[in-house]
Amino acid sequence: MNNTFKAACIQQSVANNDKAQNHAHTAQAIRDLANQGVKLVVLQELHSTQYFCQTEDTDVFDFAEPLAGDEAHSVQFFQALAGELDIVLVTSLFEKRAAGVYHNTSVVFDGDKLAGKFRKMHIPDDPGFYEKFYFTPGDNDPDDAFNGFKPIETRLGKIGVLICWDQWYPEAARLMALAGADILCYPTAIGWDINDDKAEQTRQKNAWTMIQQSHAVANGVYVISANRVGWEASPEGNGLGIQFWGGSFIAGPQGEMLAHADDDKEQNLIAEIDIKRSEDVRRIWPYLRDRRVDAYQHINKRLID
Amino acid sequence: MNNTFKAACIQQSVANNDKAQNHAHTAQAIRDLANQGVKLVVLQELHSTQYFCQTEDTDVFDFAEPLAGDEAHSVQFFQALAGELDIVLVTSLFEKRAAGVYHNTSVVFDGDKLAGKFRKMHIPDDPGFYEKFYFTPGDNDPDDAFNGFKPIETRLGKIGVLICWDQWYPEAARLMALAGADILCYPTAIGWDINDDKAEQTRQKNAWTMIQQSHAVANGVYVISANRVGWEASPEGNGLGIQFWGGSFIAGPQGEMLAHADDDKEQNLIAEIDIKRSEDVRRIWPYLRDRRVDAYQHINKRLID
Repeated sequence: MNNTFKAACIQQSVANNDKAQNHAHTAQAIRDLANQGVKLVVLQELHSTQYFCQTEDTDVFDFAEPLAGDEAHSVQFFQALAGELDIVLVTSLFEKRAAGVYHNTSVVFDGDKLAGKFRKMHIPDDPGFYEKFYFTPGDNDPDDAFNGFKPIETRLGKIGVLICWDQWYPEAARLMALAGADILCYPTAIGWDINDDKAEQTRQKNAWTMIQQSHAVANGVYVISANRVGWEASPEGNGLGIQFWGGSFIAGPQGEMLAHADDDKEQNLIAEIDIKRSEDVRRIWPYLRDRRVDAYQHINKRLID
Repeated sequence: MNNTFKAACIQQSVANNDKAQNHAHTAQAIRDLANQGVKLVVLQELHSTQYFCQTEDTDVFDFAEPLAGDEAHSVQFFQALAGELDIVLVTSLFEKRAAGVYHNTSVVFDGDKLAGKFRKMHIPDDPGFYEKFYFTPGDNDPDDAFNGFKPIETRLGKIGVLICWDQWYPEAARLMALAGADILCYPTAIGWDINDDKAEQTRQKNAWTMIQQSHAVANGVYVISANRVGWEASPEGNGLGIQFWGGSFIAGPQGEMLAHADDDKEQNLIAEIDIKRSEDVRRIWPYLRDRRVDAYQHINKRLID
């Protein structure tokens, strides 16, 4: 396992739903990064298309693909690319698992090997983000000792992938860290409602940034968050839409910013990762030593009432 | 219950271990705040003395007091003061519960009533912060349905008090919020090792700030953190000591700073609290709705290995 390497995330705008074109656009950025020696690349949430959850439309399920077999075009494309460039690649795909069961799924490639997948566990639903219509939550399979929060083994360490809404849950980050994650990666698609005033928009973006940095702090791990950027009009043609706020970042195990993108343009971020630093940080801030595991059982409750 | 009120925290230096003198100094600040209409005041950790955990010294246990009876001088003093000013007051005391059983305990007064107490659950131990020598961790009493993380009912709402090292644990904040806490209060004593370089000091203080702000975000509650400030030399006379970094703050339920103290002087912070705003924030960011309570059970484990 390499202890030090260059990691990157790609923040892009998506102009349409032509998957081949979008894949080519993303592949160009991945190649550029690999040419700079980057070994780990994290893509934004559902990067193959525009963010399609602004409406509830049954035709949208046609965007989904299985993860294996002849129809697994996206998996084949990114697996071949990761193999050619010999990198670890964290993708974010719309998975068709069965008729009527679709997931928001990150597939991770370690070179030409499909190293593992993570299915989004927490599914949001609010105006313009109608994800509960599209995505079945990730399984808590009784056969899975990790209850769905399973880091993915790669040559660069264990990657704890969590997706967008998962990022607001300290429990998710903690479970990944307890299971050995060295790095948390968050493919994301979040933006502003343009009807909110500037102060509310600022509070929202700051909250989004700090909650993810806090997962680095609480767990002494690196965090890589890749968000999309740019305006996407609602398909309903009602004048509404989402201004995706970019702001992708890479943070170190004390939550410190190593690289931080702007809110209004495409950008590739690169940072040097030193997995050994997690060890150093945890020695002086040994939170995991002092957890009151005897007293947390009510975390499993909806409310304590 | 008042929905809107002024809350405050007091950031002070402590020059010696004369409890009567230190209580008088703190009482003056509390009176000043009450005269400005403040209804909730949060004090810093172990405000009656200097931070005595820089060494392990059995004589230090003499600073501790029971919470009831003739020897409960600190309780009597602050209970009378809260009653006279008719405020809610969050104190932080060194409790003697029995010979050999001492706690780091926050006692909360609602006017002249002792509303409740919280005993620090997570006890740190690292160079200069030898707390495991002095403090028995707070109970997870099988008769206590809250497992030790019990908010305290007051006229201003439910106060979830957590103390210093507790602040690094998202589980603690979450449990208080699930049990109905409207406001999280953190009496704190944290500072810099002057042998660390400026970059490390900056990372540490930023991490401390953001982890607590993140509890506001994750739970949609107000956070009030009161930290001490100034230099306290080690009693060992070895030239070592702690530069307490102040930086006390009051944050709203999106983590936004409402008031933020400097790192080098005594300061009283005041902010307007509107408990109703938690309701509004949770309606648009309903994290509690989507928690995967079916999949968090391993939070109770030390590690998932």
